[in-house]
Amino acid sequence: MNIYIIGAATTKFGELWGVSPRTLAHQAVSNALADADITTKEIEALFVGNMLSGMLGGQEHLGAFFAEELGITAPAFKVEGACASGGLALHNAVNSVLSGQYKTVVVLGVEKMTDHKPEDVATALMGAGSEGERLSGATFPGLYAIIARAHMEKYKTTERDLASVAVKNHYHASLNPNAQFHSPVTIEQVLKSSCVADPLKLLDCSPISDGAAAVIITSKPSTVNQKHVEIIASVAATDTLGLAQRGSLTELHATKEAGLGAFKKAGIKPSDIDVAEVHDCFTIAEILAMEDIGFYKKGEAASAITRGETMLGKSQHLVVNPSGGLKGCGHPVGATGVKQVVELFDQLLGRAQIRQVSHAKIGLAHNVGGSGATATVHILKTI
Amino acid sequence: MNIYIIGAATTKFGELWGVSPRTLAHQAVSNALADADITTKEIEALFVGNMLSGMLGGQEHLGAFFAEELGITAPAFKVEGACASGGLALHNAVNSVLSGQYKTVVVLGVEKMTDHKPEDVATALMGAGSEGERLSGATFPGLYAIIARAHMEKYKTTERDLASVAVKNHYHASLNPNAQFHSPVTIEQVLKSSCVADPLKLLDCSPISDGAAAVIITSKPSTVNQKHVEIIASVAATDTLGLAQRGSLTELHATKEAGLGAFKKAGIKPSDIDVAEVHDCFTIAEILAMEDIGFYKKGEAASAITRGETMLGKSQHLVVNPSGGLKGCGHPVGATGVKQVVELFDQLLGRAQIRQVSHAKIGLAHNVGGSGATATVHILKTI
Repeated sequence: MNIYIIGAATTKFGELWGVSPRTLAHQAVSNALADADITTKEIEALFVGNMLSGMLGGQEHLGAFFAEELGITAPAFKVEGACASGGLALHNAVNSVLSGQYKTVVVLGVEKMTDHKPEDVATALMGAGSEGERLSGATFPGLYAIIARAHMEKYKTTERDLASVAVKNHYHASLNPNAQFHSPVTIEQVLKSSCVADPLKLLDCSPISDGAAAVIITSKPSTVNQKHVEIIASVAATDTLGLAQRGSLTELHATKEAGLGAFKKAGIKPSDIDVAEVHDCFTIAEILAMEDIGFYKKGEAASAITRGETMLGKSQHLVVNPSGGLKGCGHPVGATGVKQVVELFDQLLGRAQIRQVSHAKIGLAHNVGGSGATATVHILKTI
Repeated sequence: MNIYIIGAATTKFGELWGVSPRTLAHQAVSNALADADITTKEIEALFVGNMLSGMLGGQEHLGAFFAEELGITAPAFKVEGACASGGLALHNAVNSVLSGQYKTVVVLGVEKMTDHKPEDVATALMGAGSEGERLSGATFPGLYAIIARAHMEKYKTTERDLASVAVKNHYHASLNPNAQFHSPVTIEQVLKSSCVADPLKLLDCSPISDGAAAVIITSKPSTVNQKHVEIIASVAATDTLGLAQRGSLTELHATKEAGLGAFKKAGIKPSDIDVAEVHDCFTIAEILAMEDIGFYKKGEAASAITRGETMLGKSQHLVVNPSGGLKGCGHPVGATGVKQVVELFDQLLGRAQIRQVSHAKIGLAHNVGGSGATATVHILKTI
């Protein structure tokens, strides 16, 4: 059985003070349904990716919560896996359609983070980490700083290399009307931004964001002419929750495993990918992703990114994070994994406007939970 | 493709002050694996049903969290749908096996509630309700009291009828070594217990509990002789989150829909069921379930229960909640939907000891989230 995406949409990402989670969800799903040219009546299940609603807002039972808001009377589920909640929701949705239980389903990723005090958000986000990390007062910038330091020591990665990721992704975001940030930044601006967790500076970190994204997937497009993109691989993988339990600090094992599994399932190799949305919650994370997915050998991604090899307009082949990534487009955690797929859908349909990757035929989305305990890889292909 | 349960286990349910969620999960899963006579190496995915860990304990990312504890390196997901989290986790697990993506998976339901102040637990549980209900200070006993009043007015259901459910389920629990309560209660004791939300008294309400339950499901038992039970239907349904938005207060539409769907899928009718575990979070909820699933016509379940028609030793056919139900066995919310299936597995294998339902061949599990916004029905059959 083949699985197709027939509609996709994202809200604007950013500090959306005046917009509720309901409204965000409504905007994303309504626009995705309109994009697919179908109504809620054709929706047989709703999968919601969200991490923080319970901890920050006291609202759980989000499947039914958003189903009611959206006028969907079908079975509804919330799937949670920290910042990979969106990717995991999509993975479970794909499996449920493959099972034959449902034909057409919506995957909604949604998160509202800016209504809360930053320290409360930081504490809630640590719900993605291990008990040892949480109780010892670690933060995610701190955990990724440890990874960055280890990578810098082992592979001579520099702070300028890290900054290059931010420069590229802020440039891409400046081309994306839905992105949180629209101002390009320079290497010097990144290097001079305030230190968050050495060596990570403010501009090495993805922001606190609000936003929602939705995709409609189906086993059977309603018409031959209905635009669609095929999901040719959907793979999830798991590693230990805590950094201290891992064999290596310079690679994410779950990313490697999900990537290998996805390429095997799709019957292609990393060099076949034209456009990728990878999980750059911190600049170091994009460097890890590029290596662990297999786009570059270990230790070679940083300089390649610094040379502009994955930047729109400069890349000869693979463009990475044309949406702006988590870094530039924003990172409403439960929405991120779905937004990545929305971006790929737009790219593969050739409708990404000024940030269009020319000749994009095969795309890859890579979503990570916590400091790498969960990873999902989805591969999409135009037909 | 057929889906089989090959192993199942539950921890003791109760106020387990000295036991962590990790330990609970470990006990349930280890025993389920031993029951199936397999090791974690054969597990290809882990589905965790849990509602409150984030809100009460600050720990999310529970798929990876419990995978690490259990030594499972496979993809891991948390599925949440309030008190139906266990049923929804099982439903998604069934679909994922049907999809061919995974062959053998574990479904773990787990909840730790007694480490927290009761008022904090009550507040967190309202995360299952609508915003209107939450913000107006409603509680679940209060919401089910409204349902009970409406049912009493419409169908002449009495407080003694409600009490009969508690009497039956406490009697069943007294036969279950894993149950939270082991003392039978009388009608008079229920009626004289302190009022929680009129007409519901303390002994009309399920308790705050700790516990975990696990089932191993597979598309292919490893040997012909491996004990197994088939899941012949797995159906979920959704209704509005809030009571005020519903057409009726005396039935749960999601239960009706899930029940109808499950009977259709299984190709059987309610009278074919020998043993059922239904969602009796409050005594009125079992009466609703008996009617909405179709075991009795509307308005006829209460008197039938009062006559003992569904009680072990008295029933001529259908026995309901032989485990003691949520009322007597306990209600660690994320674990409940999985524990129901563990009980059915034991019953259908004829190993339920002194609470064995004679000639149990077909069983039904019914799990509800909130005041009825989510419902799942699973039907199991011996082979």
